[in-house]
Amino acid sequence: MSIVYERVALIGLGLIASSMAHAMRRAGLVGEIVGYSRSKETRDTAREIGLCDRVEESAAAAVEDADLVVLCVPVGAMEAVTLEIAPALKSGATVSDVGSTKRAVIEAVRPHLPEGVHFVPAHPLAGTEQSGPTSGFAELFDNRWCLMTPVEGTAPDAIARLTALWTGLGSNVEEMDPDHHDLVLAVTSHAPHLIAYTMVGVADDLRRVTDSEVVKYSAAGFRDFTRIAASDPTMWRDVFLTNKEATLEILGRFTEELFALQRAIRTGDGEHLHDYFTRTRAIRRGIIEAGQDTDAPDFGRGGHG
Amino acid sequence: MSIVYERVALIGLGLIASSMAHAMRRAGLVGEIVGYSRSKETRDTAREIGLCDRVEESAAAAVEDADLVVLCVPVGAMEAVTLEIAPALKSGATVSDVGSTKRAVIEAVRPHLPEGVHFVPAHPLAGTEQSGPTSGFAELFDNRWCLMTPVEGTAPDAIARLTALWTGLGSNVEEMDPDHHDLVLAVTSHAPHLIAYTMVGVADDLRRVTDSEVVKYSAAGFRDFTRIAASDPTMWRDVFLTNKEATLEILGRFTEELFALQRAIRTGDGEHLHDYFTRTRAIRRGIIEAGQDTDAPDFGRGGHG
Repeated sequence: MSIVYERVALIGLGLIASSMAHAMRRAGLVGEIVGYSRSKETRDTAREIGLCDRVEESAAAAVEDADLVVLCVPVGAMEAVTLEIAPALKSGATVSDVGSTKRAVIEAVRPHLPEGVHFVPAHPLAGTEQSGPTSGFAELFDNRWCLMTPVEGTAPDAIARLTALWTGLGSNVEEMDPDHHDLVLAVTSHAPHLIAYTMVGVADDLRRVTDSEVVKYSAAGFRDFTRIAASDPTMWRDVFLTNKEATLEILGRFTEELFALQRAIRTGDGEHLHDYFTRTRAIRRGIIEAGQDTDAPDFGRGGHG
Repeated sequence: MSIVYERVALIGLGLIASSMAHAMRRAGLVGEIVGYSRSKETRDTAREIGLCDRVEESAAAAVEDADLVVLCVPVGAMEAVTLEIAPALKSGATVSDVGSTKRAVIEAVRPHLPEGVHFVPAHPLAGTEQSGPTSGFAELFDNRWCLMTPVEGTAPDAIARLTALWTGLGSNVEEMDPDHHDLVLAVTSHAPHLIAYTMVGVADDLRRVTDSEVVKYSAAGFRDFTRIAASDPTMWRDVFLTNKEATLEILGRFTEELFALQRAIRTGDGEHLHDYFTRTRAIRRGIIEAGQDTDAPDFGRGGHG
């Protein structure tokens, strides 16, 4: 593959940025990778493991002469970091991000960018429960979606170039309206995460069931929730604070449904339960057919009560 | 390993029974395996694939001369099947089961067993989203827990022998009071399953987000819920109907917590969210340390919003 950007600056060096660095090298897509993290410890680690070609001591220094700047910080930190780098951005450069909510990022970043700088928001739908500069790996984005939410008036070639990068990192790229993105993600990610966090918190609170029992017998279903609920707290706090409306709407519907199922349990309405559980199987089949999972047995995970 | 039971009858030939058949053969623990299923189709399939040494046309015929009879049917079918086999049970035989709730199974089975027959309820905490006689595999119980909930007055050697079988199938066996079992499972399995079913149902209902979008972008977290929510509807209906009280109690606490987190989102209380998400990480670490999961990256599953 040929070079898509001569110099890329990664601001923030967590799971996504470090995976991008590995994947960009694997594909030979980039001339030079420059990195910056607010934490000295992270900068030191990144230097030790040779994550980037160069790690700078300030965000402004890192973006100097960069053709692409990717903001890989929690959504709540986007505005501050934009104010920091804006004066140092090269004319013609593209700024992008990897934030999990898009309307809020657009509002935090766009007003502060100088004329002549392109802005193409993006969200790679990939991750693990790990965080930090050592957690990245080149395969993270393979066969995963990357959603781009460009705003009106963005230069088409800036979008095309960023699309070429993400395709080269292994992703399938789609464009989407930012508000629709936030609603889709509320359903497929944000509400499920809040629900998993809640269930794990409840289990932790229960005094009649000891923590060690919850841990010991977690393979019966609970474990899948703890994996989701072990993700980075700062990132997730910012997701919920910046996708408030859509997340609360989905949670409202969720609570309604849950009440209906609780009532069916209380009144012994087995038919309602059976019908509901039969319907949800179809969605699972769709996911397997769409290649987003396999139906191979996973040796004791899930399924049996 | 030496023979633990000369003849074992499996009543019901789904995921658990078929996995038991494979695992018993792998370990050479059993002289003869006899099977029965209410469904002719299942009996035919079991014969075709040679799942058991013999498949009988009635439950009563299957349990004749058996040293161990394992009821592998949904909890709601336990009483009827017990009435069917009771007259045919050999004196000195042990009856066990693999039901996900234990108080209800004890009430459904024990009153109908003849004198001289031992009853040792058991629950292997293992499973996949698959069901049916072709879904079983010998490794399903390896390093998983099997909880036994013997009632007072059970002959210790009947318990010891069943323990030897389950240990030979790969499981770690623990004894537990039936009511405590039902509470522990409500936390670690039944409530999480109902919650996953609910979330998948909500996603299916949403008209503004198309089904294909939900399926396409499921890797962002939702997919783990669909795996849980694809389990056998009949089995799960019976679980909720027979562990009503404990499940409703946990769901009540869950709803309370969820409301508190929703309020924190609505009022923008980031500290509350951050604290909560930080606390749930500790449970995840416990599960990894207890060997019930690994923290290896799972290539795009979970984590990132």
